[in-house]
Amino acid sequence: MSFEENIRKVVPYTPGEQPQRKVIKLNTNECPYPPSEKVTRALREFDTELLRKYPDPECSGLVGAIADYYKVGKEKVFVGVGSDDVLSMCFLTFFAGKKPVLFPDITYSFYDVWANVYGIPFETIALDEDFNIRAEDYKKENGGIVIANPNAPTGVEEPLSKIEEIISSSPDSIVIVDEAYADFGENTAISLVDKYKNLVVTRTMSKSRALAGMRIGYAFADERLIKYLNDVKFSVNSYTMNMPSLIAGREAILDDEYFKEIRDKVVATREWTKAELKKLGFSFRDSKTNFIFATHESEQAERIYEVLKEKDVYVRYFNKPRLSDYLRISIGTDEEMKELVSLLKNILKR
Amino acid sequence: MSFEENIRKVVPYTPGEQPQRKVIKLNTNECPYPPSEKVTRALREFDTELLRKYPDPECSGLVGAIADYYKVGKEKVFVGVGSDDVLSMCFLTFFAGKKPVLFPDITYSFYDVWANVYGIPFETIALDEDFNIRAEDYKKENGGIVIANPNAPTGVEEPLSKIEEIISSSPDSIVIVDEAYADFGENTAISLVDKYKNLVVTRTMSKSRALAGMRIGYAFADERLIKYLNDVKFSVNSYTMNMPSLIAGREAILDDEYFKEIRDKVVATREWTKAELKKLGFSFRDSKTNFIFATHESEQAERIYEVLKEKDVYVRYFNKPRLSDYLRISIGTDEEMKELVSLLKNILKR
Repeated sequence: MSFEENIRKVVPYTPGEQPQRKVIKLNTNECPYPPSEKVTRALREFDTELLRKYPDPECSGLVGAIADYYKVGKEKVFVGVGSDDVLSMCFLTFFAGKKPVLFPDITYSFYDVWANVYGIPFETIALDEDFNIRAEDYKKENGGIVIANPNAPTGVEEPLSKIEEIISSSPDSIVIVDEAYADFGENTAISLVDKYKNLVVTRTMSKSRALAGMRIGYAFADERLIKYLNDVKFSVNSYTMNMPSLIAGREAILDDEYFKEIRDKVVATREWTKAELKKLGFSFRDSKTNFIFATHESEQAERIYEVLKEKDVYVRYFNKPRLSDYLRISIGTDEEMKELVSLLKNILKR
Repeated sequence: MSFEENIRKVVPYTPGEQPQRKVIKLNTNECPYPPSEKVTRALREFDTELLRKYPDPECSGLVGAIADYYKVGKEKVFVGVGSDDVLSMCFLTFFAGKKPVLFPDITYSFYDVWANVYGIPFETIALDEDFNIRAEDYKKENGGIVIANPNAPTGVEEPLSKIEEIISSSPDSIVIVDEAYADFGENTAISLVDKYKNLVVTRTMSKSRALAGMRIGYAFADERLIKYLNDVKFSVNSYTMNMPSLIAGREAILDDEYFKEIRDKVVATREWTKAELKKLGFSFRDSKTNFIFATHESEQAERIYEVLKEKDVYVRYFNKPRLSDYLRISIGTDEEMKELVSLLKNILKR
């Protein structure tokens, strides 16, 4: 008899390493460019005396800016402490049934962690050999579906028609489309939110808006689902978003010009990197994200990861089935990627 | 058949009103003084370019400052997005058993909300007629115990001996002592953390350190409990604290002189307000918090609340059994409390 038996014991998600030394950091899909100067200015001008008060629990300023930008009603917008907080709240809110929630075997590795912590039954569905989703695999009884599009860590983007097929074939389940990387891709399911009452689309400002350190995520869904989500959020923590995050998120959304500038730079660098990696004997699916998930024709991924780390270049290596031959390489600045390519040339020469 | 049956339906906590107009705001126990100038300076000097990166998931700088200040090992410290986040994580982590968790019938009204959202069985134990806890009532089979000390909304502080009696009599349960208001009182259970392996003490920077808008809470417990708590936290969101909150929290802890100055001012104003309220026919238990929970000898609490609100003075009224004759009045500046007293004189004259 002990309090041990009342304790929820879980295996947590392992985030990428955050070395405190100065390194070339291509392991957590951060943006290589700083956030908008408008974010900086607003934070500098923020009256810190206000910090003595609680922030706006409705997050109205941020929600309004997101709603306007995406031309969606503000009653269809939810915000949280990064898309991890948004997704966690979605799992807690929408997957309270007994049937298994479905998601791919290779995808964001937090999904099964959330399922475990909240006691949600789940079943993983294997991607095909090219890391593609087969929509027909999801046409079975389920308590919910989660699809990352583009997917991580593969970088593969599925056509919207396939995503819609999955949403429409499970009208009695909530389908979450996790679009953390969609800004670097070509399509989005946000336009489907008006059409499907069972759809939730989640986004983050951590990657394409260079605000990982501020923790801002958001979601779009039918008003009814947003209401349920807010009821759970207000049952966990009334004030999740602090004042600086509300201010920074709003400014980041408003500065569309800068957003497009840095996104386009990341995409251009990605395309250059793809060409260089190919020349070095790497192969990969055509990434639509800010990272490339690559395997080499002869050298072991783990060895490349280790040698790069010795040289202070951090990429992500997953020692898991189907992934252990691959490296996930975030897109940095042109200079960082040139340095990476140069190091890889040396490693692969030996 | 519909996705409705998979949805977790809950009745959320209702936070105090946050009027956007300029009012005398005595309804959410905020600090009437601004945060430390060192907080302001650190936020102004913060290099916003860093925001492109994820924050330190271990929150080392903040955890280290708290550990040093309280002379507790850093492996015994946990931090979160306000003490609400810390308490929510504690409920999720420590109350996963089947026996009911015990807490007073009159206490922080978030406890039953967390129990409901996480499906935790609970039982409320009536305070005595003077709003005091009876330690013997907690000497029964339970899956955990939560005690706010000083209690809210009553303002009553129990002696540490009574708290220790509760902790020691349930060694097979986790006992959480919620010390959100302890900085305004006279005792703390932090010193007991080394003695009892089943104790968790939670704190917040929202009240006594004037940082409600930044969302910073923390907890002390045996290393083993902190490890379980971190496993659950890292199963929900790896990065809950953003960079500004990590910086602000550290500076607020380091500026002990300013902390003591504003805390002492709040306590002095509270004592002045008590004397004035007594003259006006109010009675209340001797508050050891930054609010007074008062009932009037003849006038209805709800009417006073309504009339004050019309005059742009917000206090908190709970329309609940045993509470509906009371007002919870946060301690503002001397000027605000003088204005309140003057308005009350007018209201009570009629």
